[in-house]
Amino acid sequence: MTDILDRVAEVLEARRRESPETSYVAGLYNKGPDTILKKIGEEATEVVIAGKGEDPAALVHEVADLWFHTMVLLASRDLSHDLVLAELERRFGISGLTEKAARTKP
Amino acid sequence: MTDILDRVAEVLEARRRESPETSYVAGLYNKGPDTILKKIGEEATEVVIAGKGEDPAALVHEVADLWFHTMVLLASRDLSHDLVLAELERRFGISGLTEKAARTKP
Amino acid sequence: MTDILDRVAEVLEARRRESPETSYVAGLYNKGPDTILKKIGEEATEVVIAGKGEDPAALVHEVADLWFHTMVLLASRDLSHDLVLAELERRFGISGLTEKAARTKP
Amino acid sequence: MTDILDRVAEVLEARRRESPETSYVAGLYNKGPDTILKKIGEEATEVVIAGKGEDPAALVHEVADLWFHTMVLLASRDLSHDLVLAELERRFGISGLTEKAARTKP
Repeated sequence: MTDILDRVAEVLEARRRESPETSYVAGLYNKGPDTILKKIGEEATEVVIAGKGEDPAALVHEVADLWFHTMVLLASRDLSHDLVLAELERRFGISGLTEKAARTKP
Repeated sequence: MTDILDRVAEVLEARRRESPETSYVAGLYNKGPDTILKKIGEEATEVVIAGKGEDPAALVHEVADLWFHTMVLLASRDLSHDLVLAELERRFGISGLTEKAARTKP
Repeated sequence: MTDILDRVAEVLEARRRESPETSYVAGLYNKGPDTILKKIGEEATEVVIAGKGEDPAALVHEVADLWFHTMVLLASRDLSHDLVLAELERRFGISGLTEKAARTKP
Repeated sequence: MTDILDRVAEVLEARRRESPETSYVAGLYNKGPDTILKKIGEEATEVVIAGKGEDPAALVHEVADLWFHTMVLLASRDLSHDLVLAELERRFGISGLTEKAARTKP
């Protein structure tokens, strides 16, 4: 399951070489960084709205949209999502149970 | 690298059984869904602000914060991040190059 | 200058009776509350982006867009902007100078 | 009612000369522009959350918070809210009814 983020990144890289007319992502790159940032704000608002609703599928859909557009933002800056995962690794590298065991050791 | 999201989910699950006084995440669960949604809005704004800046590490840091809080939101609704990855899989399951080859086949 | 908000409210009220095809505001009412809330999120993000920039006119423009869309939201709920002004009045009813004079009185 | 925005602006101006320790607004000015922009994102999210709820007083409260923090942002840039009103005047200076009459004239 987890390699899907690599595949998304691969698609985002491929879109750099395509026409803004035929690719949504190429269009975002072409319109410049503010357009991508506006999409982040929009998609985050849609997550909040879905989070106030009852439909789990809608919430999952909006979170996917938000993650996707943050990956577009990173790609537009030549940054890999692996850096985000590495940051989470740094914070959460020890599993919850291991961490708890470590903390409760005398 | 990719299993880190599973580990974050494991930590988020473990935090359910902890005290809101000692765990930031338990505190978020305890304060209710609106508090988590407010954090999504805050963190998305911080991504936008970092996106206007020059520091790649700051941008990565803020995207990690945003992804983390969307995972807290999902966990608070008993939803796995695997559903988000599956949604992205559904959209991007064929790699960019394969997709292109498929489209350009006669 | 200040009566302009009343005039905006008057326009918003008149738009209720117009066609969604010919009026932007009637279109917002017609698409339902989530569409208006998404616009609030979008316009707030645009204020943040303009706030990171140097152009004062762009910032003023985006704040006007944000205030306008909050007035659309209020109007869609049959709430007057006067309630917002009354809330600010309640918080800031004593002017800065009067407040200062009051505090510095022996 | 309408002069309340002038009074808010007067208070915001007075706060510039106060200590960040004793004044919330002086604290915002002191922490720098990004802190004010983050507040805009937070308050906009709270408007969206209140907009999904049923309580009109909560919605009015959050819109007042949002307007207030946009005025703090403007004040931090030495911009008057009158510029925002002038922008709305430019867009909506003719009342809805007058505008309609003007458009329907043969």
